[in-house]
Amino acid sequence: MQDEFQPVELAKSHLLLNHGPVVLISSAFHGRRNVMAASWVMPLDFNPPKVAAVIDSRSYTRELVDASGEFALNLPCRCIADKVLAAGSISGRDGDKFAHTGLATFPAGQLGAPLVRECVAWLECKLIAEKHNQQRYDLFIAEVVAAWADPAVFSESRWHFPDSGRRTIHYQAGGSFFETGRAFDCSGE
Amino acid sequence: MQDEFQPVELAKSHLLLNHGPVVLISSAFHGRRNVMAASWVMPLDFNPPKVAAVIDSRSYTRELVDASGEFALNLPCRCIADKVLAAGSISGRDGDKFAHTGLATFPAGQLGAPLVRECVAWLECKLIAEKHNQQRYDLFIAEVVAAWADPAVFSESRWHFPDSGRRTIHYQAGGSFFETGRAFDCSGE
Repeated sequence: MQDEFQPVELAKSHLLLNHGPVVLISSAFHGRRNVMAASWVMPLDFNPPKVAAVIDSRSYTRELVDASGEFALNLPCRCIADKVLAAGSISGRDGDKFAHTGLATFPAGQLGAPLVRECVAWLECKLIAEKHNQQRYDLFIAEVVAAWADPAVFSESRWHFPDSGRRTIHYQAGGSFFETGRAFDCSGE
Repeated sequence: MQDEFQPVELAKSHLLLNHGPVVLISSAFHGRRNVMAASWVMPLDFNPPKVAAVIDSRSYTRELVDASGEFALNLPCRCIADKVLAAGSISGRDGDKFAHTGLATFPAGQLGAPLVRECVAWLECKLIAEKHNQQRYDLFIAEVVAAWADPAVFSESRWHFPDSGRRTIHYQAGGSFFETGRAFDCSGE
């Protein structure tokens, strides 16, 4: 990992996904690699942390995840939203999607899958074999084995977005996103 | 349903959840009812639409969902964030949580579970029996059988939030939320 990225305590890694951002799912197997955009991802457990993600049976990512037993969740920010949309619009079967989208990578800590450099947080995930869910629902359950964040936007278990370009994003449809908006606190009742 | 809420085409109902907002899960069984806050919810399929949701085995909601085979997802907005936090902080076993939080209800179209009035969209869901997921992961898969939205904030398959108070919200932790932020469009590459 690069020095500017710091580890996130595993038991706190669900906080990276709690607010429902879009992610890039990166994967690799035997020299092949891919990246896809996904909104249908959520935390599933705290400790050990697990996630659930929907990966379409027809996708190239599905082939690599099925073969490798792992994937990484990369949280993109607004400044690369155009690349996220591109990653969600083309197939890795038509050529290296990292090269095509201009998304740079760096090595993961525990996975063969690459991580996406321009992102703000990363979760490295190893599949928990649940064939029925995978085959019937395209639903993958995985354990988070490492997590990282850019301390400029996530530290001490909280997001603190410094500017618009580094905010996480949420996908609507048809090329339309939302920024993660203003933070506010409630006291309950 | 009330006249001011309009049906959302089932095949488009995933668009209500795509951006990862926090939801209120409402449930009822034999005169008992409850509402809980949840962030670990996502779309699972387009048509027929399905959702996945994590419902803790110790929760009162779990008891009612297990017994009734249904739940509703209600999307709250910023103006009731304090009630969402309260709904996520207390147990329905300690008394009627709707009364306690001041959340008003109205009848669902197809469920016994009530819907939460102050929300901006609603998905009525019937469980698909998946005992292994429920018991091992607290993970519930359900089919969306009806969906509704306030046309002032969602119409023609798009969100268009008119002001801050009616924006959907995303939970961080410790009483801290994000508003759904500014919308922006990308053209891909």
